[in-house]
Amino acid sequence: MLKIILRWGDHMTRKIAVIGMGNVGATAAHYIVACGFADDLVLIDTREEKVQADATDFEDAMANLPYHTNITVNDYSQLKDTDVIISALGNIKLQDNKNDDRFAELPFTSKAVKSVAQKIKDSGFNGIIVDISNPVDVITSMYQEITGLPKKHVIGTGTLLDSSRMKRAVAKELGIDPRSVSGYNLGEHGNSQFTAWSTVRVLGHPITEIASQRNLDLNKLDKAAREGGFSVFHGKKYTNYGVATAAVRLANTVISDARTQLAVSNYREELDTYLSYPAIVGRDGIIEQGPA
Amino acid sequence: MLKIILRWGDHMTRKIAVIGMGNVGATAAHYIVACGFADDLVLIDTREEKVQADATDFEDAMANLPYHTNITVNDYSQLKDTDVIISALGNIKLQDNKNDDRFAELPFTSKAVKSVAQKIKDSGFNGIIVDISNPVDVITSMYQEITGLPKKHVIGTGTLLDSSRMKRAVAKELGIDPRSVSGYNLGEHGNSQFTAWSTVRVLGHPITEIASQRNLDLNKLDKAAREGGFSVFHGKKYTNYGVATAAVRLANTVISDARTQLAVSNYREELDTYLSYPAIVGRDGIIEQGPA
Amino acid sequence: MLKIILRWGDHMTRKIAVIGMGNVGATAAHYIVACGFADDLVLIDTREEKVQADATDFEDAMANLPYHTNITVNDYSQLKDTDVIISALGNIKLQDNKNDDRFAELPFTSKAVKSVAQKIKDSGFNGIIVDISNPVDVITSMYQEITGLPKKHVIGTGTLLDSSRMKRAVAKELGIDPRSVSGYNLGEHGNSQFTAWSTVRVLGHPITEIASQRNLDLNKLDKAAREGGFSVFHGKKYTNYGVATAAVRLANTVISDARTQLAVSNYREELDTYLSYPAIVGRDGIIEQGPA
Amino acid sequence: MLKIILRWGDHMTRKIAVIGMGNVGATAAHYIVACGFADDLVLIDTREEKVQADATDFEDAMANLPYHTNITVNDYSQLKDTDVIISALGNIKLQDNKNDDRFAELPFTSKAVKSVAQKIKDSGFNGIIVDISNPVDVITSMYQEITGLPKKHVIGTGTLLDSSRMKRAVAKELGIDPRSVSGYNLGEHGNSQFTAWSTVRVLGHPITEIASQRNLDLNKLDKAAREGGFSVFHGKKYTNYGVATAAVRLANTVISDARTQLAVSNYREELDTYLSYPAIVGRDGIIEQGPA
Repeated sequence: MLKIILRWGDHMTRKIAVIGMGNVGATAAHYIVACGFADDLVLIDTREEKVQADATDFEDAMANLPYHTNITVNDYSQLKDTDVIISALGNIKLQDNKNDDRFAELPFTSKAVKSVAQKIKDSGFNGIIVDISNPVDVITSMYQEITGLPKKHVIGTGTLLDSSRMKRAVAKELGIDPRSVSGYNLGEHGNSQFTAWSTVRVLGHPITEIASQRNLDLNKLDKAAREGGFSVFHGKKYTNYGVATAAVRLANTVISDARTQLAVSNYREELDTYLSYPAIVGRDGIIEQGPA
Repeated sequence: MLKIILRWGDHMTRKIAVIGMGNVGATAAHYIVACGFADDLVLIDTREEKVQADATDFEDAMANLPYHTNITVNDYSQLKDTDVIISALGNIKLQDNKNDDRFAELPFTSKAVKSVAQKIKDSGFNGIIVDISNPVDVITSMYQEITGLPKKHVIGTGTLLDSSRMKRAVAKELGIDPRSVSGYNLGEHGNSQFTAWSTVRVLGHPITEIASQRNLDLNKLDKAAREGGFSVFHGKKYTNYGVATAAVRLANTVISDARTQLAVSNYREELDTYLSYPAIVGRDGIIEQGPA
Repeated sequence: MLKIILRWGDHMTRKIAVIGMGNVGATAAHYIVACGFADDLVLIDTREEKVQADATDFEDAMANLPYHTNITVNDYSQLKDTDVIISALGNIKLQDNKNDDRFAELPFTSKAVKSVAQKIKDSGFNGIIVDISNPVDVITSMYQEITGLPKKHVIGTGTLLDSSRMKRAVAKELGIDPRSVSGYNLGEHGNSQFTAWSTVRVLGHPITEIASQRNLDLNKLDKAAREGGFSVFHGKKYTNYGVATAAVRLANTVISDARTQLAVSNYREELDTYLSYPAIVGRDGIIEQGPA
Repeated sequence: MLKIILRWGDHMTRKIAVIGMGNVGATAAHYIVACGFADDLVLIDTREEKVQADATDFEDAMANLPYHTNITVNDYSQLKDTDVIISALGNIKLQDNKNDDRFAELPFTSKAVKSVAQKIKDSGFNGIIVDISNPVDVITSMYQEITGLPKKHVIGTGTLLDSSRMKRAVAKELGIDPRSVSGYNLGEHGNSQFTAWSTVRVLGHPITEIASQRNLDLNKLDKAAREGGFSVFHGKKYTNYGVATAAVRLANTVISDARTQLAVSNYREELDTYLSYPAIVGRDGIIEQGPA
């Protein structure tokens, strides 16, 4: 049992930090501010003018918003009592339009992560890291190694986004709510993730059953799920809303200790690696793993 | 600077306790659960079956709600790291239908408060108390004395409700949004509170100006504000939505450190008493007093 | 295709009516007001003073709430362009504490429904009715017959509540989020509803599998689900939060045309009766039935 | 009184359209989707790939969001029964970094508005237009002229943003909630808007009084308000959160018929022009003008 000493009032808060204020990080921060999910929000980016601009822009929204959020900028010492850090480091411009390779960002991001993770460690942070940065399984692992945080306290959004894309594709085909599709995409987020069709259920039945009744082509659905993501990327040169929503949901699940089963990137001891697989997520991070 | 020792994870939360699960306390708890304002919610009532029934009823709502709230029942040890306690003790049945005297509940409530406040103190609670119980100025003072908490950390909802009733009456007369009426009701919540008309502005002008232009009778508006409250009480033998909403707003203002100016019952040194007067409210309770 | 003529502005709204302002109806109305789910809210009850008291109490909350709701009272003509009517008629005091028989209210409620349904019909209402009143399958059927609305436009909350109770019981046993339990309770809401264990999945697997791995006793879980409801009723002589949340979720599902699969009371042609069974719910009511 | 004929179900919705999916329009759309403000959302942009990308990205978020929103893309016929159109046309790249001249976009935007406004008119749209596009007073006027909608049904966000920037600057100086600052910025949004200090009140008193007590320099505050906006623009080459929040608040105020007094661009008959001045905003657009 880790003991920490807090000043009075430090415990009275939901405190979230977003590191990396590109398209994804700024969108996550906006979602948090707009819905009042955090009381204290720490924004960090090496581009001082950009992160300050976003902070002021959020503060310019405050008088027209119902919720109050206290925003601080580029102060790593704020991480000491932060509950969840959302890492959205990255440089989407490094991704090649032609092959959509999430590994293209690795050299850039891994260098940035080394520096950021060390500063997180030095701050005394002892909460949960939610990593969005790609390649997500590799970067999440780097965060864990450098910060030395318990493996269960470092999580990647992983295939939580791919799963919601699969639900979007299946739901659209059947004309139903994506929330009425259950199941998971698993594996390595990016090109080698896959829909675990055996886990997918819809209308209360295995999708395989429904598919044969209604002549659905699962390969076509799989393609629709993947290509949705690609078409977003090609249509605007980045993707932000889907992945930022997944990250904030993950942060909220941790903070409220909801103990929800989600497919996220978590450390799998049997493979000695981070990989997306269903896990129960709560205030203590990965509470329990699997089964798929 | 007060130092406290917390176990890991204890600081990752908005934790609110509601003491007294009558009509007002249960409504406040429901509002918190329905809108996801707290991560951890502590419910306390001497009627063990009633408070357990409300807790289970909230849990039966959870699968149809977007937010997750962890609920514990009748465990004073949970108050140790609670951020805000909402006290809704009282026995509305003791109020006389004829004279609407908020002092009628004093003997009952003051006895209950003595016991509850001592248990709060014994728990090691060091957050903010938001008291709804009537007569609110007296009871709030009792909470402060018995718990020994700093005076600025014990607050009563006071005329926050009367102010919103005044806004409702003025807004209705003018056919506008009650949020477009600013100003305060002050004094002792109950029969001797009064609308400080000099503070009331509407349509960007002093209400006195608007009143003379539009032939509004301020006495009639004052009566409409008061009688609204009475008619609620007479129509259902209690009032709950208005006051519970005021209390939860006050709790949220504290937790998010919004530093909002609100007319609430706060300790006035010059009078050595609790009384409703505008104050800036934030994470450290009453941050700054007045001016009216 | 039904054509109606509206005045300008009539279509600019989410308009919900709640009929019956007892514990359940008032709680549903409060949830709608607190979360801003409706723009226009119509409240109807034969107890004129009670419904007026609740309306004023909601208006007294407005200045402390972020959302605006326009409230009208006991005006059936407002139903003409109402989107969803939530019926919460009933007299819980008629239920026998000993046998928890939802049919005990039938004579009282059926009489009230006859009168109310005729007035709904006379108003020109052509939206969706969400019925909570017990015995829910019988009363929902009565609403459909008297109003003459299409069968798919009259829905009862049915076992949506029982399903969430089952999820609460299963989730508590496993220490997980009730939202991570899928599956349905079916049948006649009340004493003859049952958990369709074959539909229940948790941790991505059939509960039967999990149960044998972890030595869960499904009969005990079934009992826990049922007894939760009973203990709520016995602990406070009514239940409101769980069922009101289910009803409002159903109304929101209709209004947003979410096309979510929910176990609700819907007309089953093969049995010529209303019964709870999974159905896709959207703006056109019951969009598609089953499979379980 | 305008009469329109709707198909069944057409009135059951909050339906908002966002035209122009640049930084501002996309942010407004995201805010609407994230908070569930609309049931039906129409997205329109000449860049087919961009708007389709945003729509799919929103749909990829849906399974992780509590609210359901039906999204359609580039279909002007959807405007027929749309309640509020938010126009966010513009090309921020045309603004000169050096002089921050909102008129720099006029040639581009006015051409686009001519085409869009005609299509709006042809669709049969009879709701409210909320214009964000700059120069906002000129463009709002163009929308009104081309669509032929009643002047009160075409509104610009105008100095609603400048007012919230003033509140941010004043609040920061005093260490209080921007929502505890009341008052307005007026005039022509852009370089000739000004803080109407005589309308500004804080801590319940005229700011002029507070300023002299606390040695506040109003000129410095005015500069801080303006420069906040400039620093946002210079820091990221656009501003989006503040203005999108203002626009969505305006749309919500209309839809819920809140009748809130806001400083927005509205047609002033005495000057025969659109200008920002306080007005009561509700479902019928500008319900009442002034006083300041």
